[in-house]
Amino acid sequence: MLNEKNVQLGKVRSSIRELFEYGKKRKAEIGEENVFDFSLGNPSVPAPPEVGAALKDIVENTDPVLLHGYTSAQGDFSVRKTLADYINSRFGLSLTADCLYMTCGAAASVSIVLNAILNDGEEVITFAPYFPEYKVFTENAGGKLTALKSGKGFLPDLDLLAKSLNPKVRAVLINSPNNPSGVVYPPDIISRLAAVLDEHFNKTGNRVFLISDEPYRELVYDNNTEVPFIMNYYAHSMVCYSYSKSLSLPGERIGYIAVNNAMENYGDVYAGICGAGRALGYVCAPSLFQQLVKRVYNKTSDISVYKRNRDRLLNALESYGYEVVKPDGAFYMFVKSLEPDAKAFAERAKEYELLIVAGDDFGAGGYARISYCVSPEMIERSLPAFKALADSYKTER
Amino acid sequence: MLNEKNVQLGKVRSSIRELFEYGKKRKAEIGEENVFDFSLGNPSVPAPPEVGAALKDIVENTDPVLLHGYTSAQGDFSVRKTLADYINSRFGLSLTADCLYMTCGAAASVSIVLNAILNDGEEVITFAPYFPEYKVFTENAGGKLTALKSGKGFLPDLDLLAKSLNPKVRAVLINSPNNPSGVVYPPDIISRLAAVLDEHFNKTGNRVFLISDEPYRELVYDNNTEVPFIMNYYAHSMVCYSYSKSLSLPGERIGYIAVNNAMENYGDVYAGICGAGRALGYVCAPSLFQQLVKRVYNKTSDISVYKRNRDRLLNALESYGYEVVKPDGAFYMFVKSLEPDAKAFAERAKEYELLIVAGDDFGAGGYARISYCVSPEMIERSLPAFKALADSYKTER
Repeated sequence: MLNEKNVQLGKVRSSIRELFEYGKKRKAEIGEENVFDFSLGNPSVPAPPEVGAALKDIVENTDPVLLHGYTSAQGDFSVRKTLADYINSRFGLSLTADCLYMTCGAAASVSIVLNAILNDGEEVITFAPYFPEYKVFTENAGGKLTALKSGKGFLPDLDLLAKSLNPKVRAVLINSPNNPSGVVYPPDIISRLAAVLDEHFNKTGNRVFLISDEPYRELVYDNNTEVPFIMNYYAHSMVCYSYSKSLSLPGERIGYIAVNNAMENYGDVYAGICGAGRALGYVCAPSLFQQLVKRVYNKTSDISVYKRNRDRLLNALESYGYEVVKPDGAFYMFVKSLEPDAKAFAERAKEYELLIVAGDDFGAGGYARISYCVSPEMIERSLPAFKALADSYKTER
Repeated sequence: MLNEKNVQLGKVRSSIRELFEYGKKRKAEIGEENVFDFSLGNPSVPAPPEVGAALKDIVENTDPVLLHGYTSAQGDFSVRKTLADYINSRFGLSLTADCLYMTCGAAASVSIVLNAILNDGEEVITFAPYFPEYKVFTENAGGKLTALKSGKGFLPDLDLLAKSLNPKVRAVLINSPNNPSGVVYPPDIISRLAAVLDEHFNKTGNRVFLISDEPYRELVYDNNTEVPFIMNYYAHSMVCYSYSKSLSLPGERIGYIAVNNAMENYGDVYAGICGAGRALGYVCAPSLFQQLVKRVYNKTSDISVYKRNRDRLLNALESYGYEVVKPDGAFYMFVKSLEPDAKAFAERAKEYELLIVAGDDFGAGGYARISYCVSPEMIERSLPAFKALADSYKTER
């Protein structure tokens, strides 16, 4: 009598949510300050001050009928124009307002794009570790997600990609800076990835889209870390962006899809996105927040806390004997489990009041995710627990 | 290479949008004041003053990390609790916070509910005239929409419903006050509708949900007009609500789904809704607007203008010889076409600069929709045009 797949999806909490709920209970039991909760990717730094000021100004000085009215389904034209111009000036492109489609955040962006391009039984390839909802969105659009094992340093294994391409593959979906590894895919990887897709097209005539889900684009911590913009590498590309992390607005659901107008069938792809957004019930992105991003599109929350957290935690964990790939961006660190089963490792971490997420759900058993979007004070307080956890394994040997 | 269905959906503008775009062009040609645009259902009265005040206060006095952070996927608990309590006090029910699921407006609500209950090939029944997107949402969820012809006064024909029920039918979807007719389904219709569904269940064991899409609930114009609350008539019922029209916030995308906890499988239905919302990419409803409706849930925009418009237009049109079913709610009037083909009628109306929508897309040829959410001044200016349009048909006879 119901759609069982969605009922199950609603019943089974993700392991992240599960852990977060456990943390809430545990904090009530032993005190907030004694639980080291690294479970959620919820920004811990406030929106930049320009956000609050702009919101108040917009509400105060805009005719409410205009401000709160429907925008066109793609989003307000002047908002899209402003963002397209900004992308063009930053990355040397020639996007128009009609390359952008405003959305309720990156999850909506990815869901809409997949519904625009997939037919039943078609395939999307991503690289493990990957954000678990990709599977949910792909399957809801009638497709199948294939997660390829990573190469060294959690970077895509491009030989494996080349072998995995087949006529059913419609898209490769990447996420850099990556959740959960924090790794940034460097320019040479993107460039070689594009070459693999082009070669596949030349050989088979099957044109595979490259989709970049990049809510963490602005969250990189070293001056020499470049997050390559995929449209400069591959014509059949789309970017799913969100202001959730850059402006610390995850609950407000505002982002966009950008379609590269250098691709052959750009008009049809954009129409497919408009159609998919309509079919899923997204009428338009929240209008007040469209106006907001028009004003503060080039601002970023103060991410220096994340950098400080990363450096402190990375140094400490390595000194305790943990193996970690240095994360260049996002606010996640993927630490190697101290026993083969990462779920058992995460369970043992709980005994030290450390809440970290086993990598299994990200398609990468043997690792655990630490979300360091927390206060530096909590990082300090948690260090003895991380040390004790590592020591507990040493004692055993 | 693409999902053709969604590409077509994105390419074909609805006839409403088409007419609206024509109107924009025409206004540029002959002046805004000379075009009588009754095409769109966009609220013309501002949000109540409490909305702007509350928005500013919330932004000014809430920690931005909390305010703009993720809420739970169902929506903030205290918001859901407040709204459930309000529904209970108003309609004498016992809903809990966990009967409510906050959404990005009524379109999202309907889309999510249909994805929660439908499997491929299953059927949803609605009554013509009906909101055209119901077909889009139903088909995207894998189902088929059947629109039954109305009975007298655009009310559901319940004998026809009884004959149309079959084992594939999962839900009956109603919309009252109705877009496009403005008709309110009275209590005896809802009560008989519930009886038909119960009888079908008793005979066949097939339990059909009753879903009420009611963004226009607060827009009724006479004291004795009651909009029955379906949960008081039928246990297996769900309400899709939106603040788009009651608070004039259509662009902000905020509403909810309420699930009747009197139904047998309430827990599974609610889980299905959570799962469907997740699968479609709705992470949570916009958090600022969740907090807003928590404060102003019992306010309504000043709808006296709509009532004045309705009365003036109805009297005038009837005096010119038009046939109209008096609308008790919403801000639409469904006028009988003066020739058999409503599309030709709407085309001829354009010659008088009147923009009205042929009923064909609403599943009711032979009629046209007039959206009277416009300024009273425009109504006055438009009357000679409506008279001339009617006279043009008289001359012909």
